[in-house]
Formats: sequence, C-alpha cells, structure tokens
Amino acid sequence: MKIIIDAMSGDNAPQAQVSGCVQAAKEFGQEYILVGQEAVLRDLLAKEQAENLPITIHDAQEIIDMHDDPATAVRRKKDASMSVALRMMKDGEADAMISAGNTGALLSGATLVTKRIRGIRRAALPTQLPCKGGHVLLIDSGANVECTEEYLLQFAFMGSFYMEKVMGVKNPRVGLVNNGAEDTKGDPLRKAAYDVLKAAGDAGRINFIGNVEGSDIPNGACDVAVTDGFTGNILLKTVEGVAGFLMGTLKDVFLTSARTKLAYLLVKPAMGGLKKMMSSKEVGGAPFLGISKPVFKAHGSSDAYAIRSAVKQAIAYVNADVVGEIQRNIDNMTL
Amino acid sequence: MKIIIDAMSGDNAPQAQVSGCVQAAKEFGQEYILVGQEAVLRDLLAKEQAENLPITIHDAQEIIDMHDDPATAVRRKKDASMSVALRMMKDGEADAMISAGNTGALLSGATLVTKRIRGIRRAALPTQLPCKGGHVLLIDSGANVECTEEYLLQFAFMGSFYMEKVMGVKNPRVGLVNNGAEDTKGDPLRKAAYDVLKAAGDAGRINFIGNVEGSDIPNGACDVAVTDGFTGNILLKTVEGVAGFLMGTLKDVFLTSARTKLAYLLVKPAMGGLKKMMSSKEVGGAPFLGISKPVFKAHGSSDAYAIRSAVKQAIAYVNADVVGEIQRNIDNMTL
Repeated sequence: MKIIIDAMSGDNAPQAQVSGCVQAAKEFGQEYILVGQEAVLRDLLAKEQAENLPITIHDAQEIIDMHDDPATAVRRKKDASMSVALRMMKDGEADAMISAGNTGALLSGATLVTKRIRGIRRAALPTQLPCKGGHVLLIDSGANVECTEEYLLQFAFMGSFYMEKVMGVKNPRVGLVNNGAEDTKGDPLRKAAYDVLKAAGDAGRINFIGNVEGSDIPNGACDVAVTDGFTGNILLKTVEGVAGFLMGTLKDVFLTSARTKLAYLLVKPAMGGLKKMMSSKEVGGAPFLGISKPVFKAHGSSDAYAIRSAVKQAIAYVNADVVGEIQRNIDNMTL
Repeated sequence: MKIIIDAMSGDNAPQAQVSGCVQAAKEFGQEYILVGQEAVLRDLLAKEQAENLPITIHDAQEIIDMHDDPATAVRRKKDASMSVALRMMKDGEADAMISAGNTGALLSGATLVTKRIRGIRRAALPTQLPCKGGHVLLIDSGANVECTEEYLLQFAFMGSFYMEKVMGVKNPRVGLVNNGAEDTKGDPLRKAAYDVLKAAGDAGRINFIGNVEGSDIPNGACDVAVTDGFTGNILLKTVEGVAGFLMGTLKDVFLTSARTKLAYLLVKPAMGGLKKMMSSKEVGGAPFLGISKPVFKAHGSSDAYAIRSAVKQAIAYVNADVVGEIQRNIDNMTL
C-alpha cells in the first residue's frame, strides 16, 4: 500500500508530518510519499536517519494555509502540497492520503479533484468521540452546515460501514441527534430524517435505534450519531470545551493543599488512562466519507504521534474497502 | 412579596415542594401559596411544623404530568395545580410562581394565560451553565425549536437584562453560538442573526462580542450565549452528559487501587466544590423570559434544596424588575 502525506499542511508541519511518517513506516510498514518542499523535507528526513525506510519525496513548492479561501484554494494554488497530493490520488499513484491542513480547502479540493462516489450528495467528516464503553462516531462533525434528510440518510449508512468495517463494531446502532427521545421531536429536518432513517431500519439496512439526546452520546447510547454539520460542530466543540474545563478545574482541585497534592501523586498513574481516552491523538484522523478515494483529515494541531495514528486509521480504511462498500450499497442510500 | 409554588408538579412533588417552601420561608421570609391537593399538602405542612410560617394552601385537585400534551394540558385540565397557579398569576394574586412540571405545558400555559410581553415574539427558557470564572446564560435552552433572527435578537436583550439585573454582571458579553468564530460562519439563520446583533451592538444597546464556538462556552468567553432552542437543548444536554461521563470515569479512576482510594479520601473535601459547581440544584430554576409575569421553571428532578434555590432566584428576578426592563426597551428589540 502507498500512502501520501501532505507534509506542509498543519500547525506543526512539516516536522510532525515527517517524524510521524517515519514512526508509521517503522511500525506499520507500507510505502510513503511525502509531498512538499523537497529541500526542506530531505533535510528533515536526514535528521530522522530514515535512509532505509520506504519513504520518497514528491516536490510541491506552495502551501495552503488557514488564510486561504477554502472554496478556491486547491484550484488557485495548483502547486500546493495539498493540491499536488489530491491530483496524485486522482491519478491512482497512491492508495490513501493524509493532510492536517485547512479542512474546508481539503474537502472542496477532494470533491473537485478526486470527486464524490457517484450518488453521494455530500461528503461528510466523521469524528470519533470517547464515550462509555468505547467510541461513538459523530457524522457530520462540521463539513456540511446545511443538510437535507437524504444527506443525513447517507451519513447514517456511511457511518455504519465505517464503524463496522474499520472499527469492528457489529451491527452498529445508529441514532439521530435530536432535542428529545420521542419520535415526534425536532425541527422539520429532524422529522423528515427520522422517517427515512426509520424506513431504512425497518428494511434491515441499518440498525436505527431512534432519536438520541446530547446526554446520550457520552453515555454510549449509539455507535453512530447522525447530525448536520452545524449541530455536529457545536456538539463536538462543546465536548472538547467541557472536557478541557473539567480537567482544568480538577487540576485546580489537586493544587489546593498539601493533602490534595499528595492525592494527585497517588492517582497520577491511573489518571493517564483518562487523559489518553480524551486525547484526539489516539485516533489521529478521519476520512471524508463519500469521496471516491481515501482522503484523510488529521487534526490541524497534529503532532508526530497523531500523524502516525492517522496513518494507522488510513491503512485500516483502505483494507476494509469502505469506498467499495458505499458504492455497492448506493441504490439503498438515495431517495 | 407573595410567591406561588405549584406543589404537585415534578418528580419529587409534593414532598420536595412543601419542604423547599418551608426552607425558603425560614431563609428568605416572604409569603407563600402552595397550590395543590389541600388534604395532602396540609398533612405535609403539619409534618414540617410550619404553623407559624406565612404559608397558605390553595386547593387544586388535578395534576399535569409528563404524559399530558404540552400544547393543550393547561386548557384541558383547568383544575390542575399548574393551571390554577397560572390563573392566580394572571389575576395578580402573587408576584412570582414556581413549577417543576412539564416544561412544554408550563410554557404553553404561561403564554396562553399570563401572556407574553407586548412585542415579544417568543418566550425563551434560559439556563445557567457553570463555566470558567462563573456562569454563562444559555438562551434559548430548549423552548423554541425553530427561530428567526428577530427571536434571537430578543433572546440577546432579555439574556443581557437577566445577567445584569439579577446576576449582577456589568455590561454582559453577548455571543452568538456558531460553528466558527469568523463573522461569515453559519447557516442562513446565524448569518441573519449576526447582522441584527451586530447592529444592536454598534448602537450600544447590547455588548455583542461576535460568534462563539461550543468550546468557548465552558471557557467563559461570554456571559450570554444566544442560540435557537434546538441547538441550545443539544448543547445543554451535551454539557450534562460529558460532565456526568467524566465524573463517573473519575470515580472509576479513584476505585482502581488502594492507593487511588487513599487519594480520594485526601481530595474528597476539595472535590465538593467541583460537584457543587456542576450541580443544577444551586441555581434551582429559571424564568420564562418574555412572559409578562415572573413564571419560574424548576428542574423536573428538583429536591427541596433546588426548590428553595428557585425561590431565591425568583425573589431576585422580581426585585430586579426584569419584566419592566424588557417592556421599557421593547422598541429596540423588534425588527
């Protein structure tokens, strides 16, 4: 398998990208292509003593950053690392690509260059959130601010395939994020989506369990939480914000006295598990589901370990052939 | 001041309502009217040895519960404690009323019986959330699933008055909950709301600070977080869910070994502050902002202490004359 890493995009690029690529090559094997400014990448690779690893460099001089207009960046900066990487994906030069760059630019670019799967109306960006007993896939987590019930139906199918094929969850439970559990709840979009999801559930095509509330999601009530990208973004950011706030407040609690400082020393090793569970670095990245090629978005603040984790996810995604699974089921996924 | 307590509505009614009323009478003075089944309430009051407190009983035999249709409950059950209490408010028999009953029924009933303030399009239910440095008022937190930019503008004004007059926050910072901080973000509702909020801010009528993300809210970036009731409900429930999940996981961490159990004993007193901060019982209740009389919604699961806290909030709300403040500013609050 060949994996492209957009080496120039992200808060810690290109160091984290090069170092994460080296870690992944050592840990997972496979072949890698770092796309970006050749001289810079060559120097960084030399420092990593990576001569014997199957990593090559493909030159691209420009960089798309957070200030570029998402809708036009890939079209306008044709020699940007992200643009070059997407064209290489389109031309079949690799099996998957990972970028920690501008989310909007990557989605627009992937849609423009590598295209959506035929029949898919919008590509979605899922995010795995920690919850009781494991992880829940939030889809869409921010790519599509305005949605129709057909988009939400497609998100439900794609999220199910991902959780089943990549994460090994049998018969994933799909919930519709709503402002109440009763089946009459919601705005017009939610009511229409409920009906089409229920029909897909009744036909045995997905395991639809009904509406889920914000509080159900951390409680592990479903494996796939379906929502529009506006609500998904707010839900995701709220989870991050509350977790950060509580962990910070907890730190203050541990710093209040000599007694509590001693308590912290005693509990510190066990706290590591909680921190690791809340960390986005373990998951690393997520594919744009619905794009015809495996294009992975890694978190903008990814460090080397997060890039390594994104590579791990991408390998599992390619091996599970989620793109093929969506293509084979597309007739059930359109209204 | 006379305060009506709907004694029959809520998960722990009527015990919590009677006991909370007694606590409030002892702590805050004022006069109280318990509305509900007279014989039951008389027995409970006798057990509380409340003979010398200024508490009277007003009989109402029916009860509105969670199974009643919110839109029609108050109209259909005319002798329910909630319905009777609302009519007494309309007739000026008391200064404020508190109910822990069916939220939808209470809002519909208040709108029907006590009416909205002239010019207010929809009453909103705000919720105070704990955040870094204090509390943030989420408005609307669930009453209005579908909103226009004018509703959101009115929520912003009403939330500002509440935080300033009742909570003592000077020049409260108003944020629009959105899927990004940039002023071009959002769905059509958010874009339209941004423009009217910015105009009100530029005119010096509210202190509009722009868009806020889900993660900004626990971080205390604003004092008033304006949103529609659908998004508000999901945000609120997510905060509750994540807080519950993390506190539960933390408990597991403390139970892992003898060392961590010892740590818990050391840190337990300091943890009390964190628990108290996350508890809805301290705030107790919130008024339907925009209703022409002070009608307070207490949490359905309110215990006696929560009812006592709701009374405290209601007294502050009446003394601050938020209803009058809204009436005096209504010309600036309509489009």
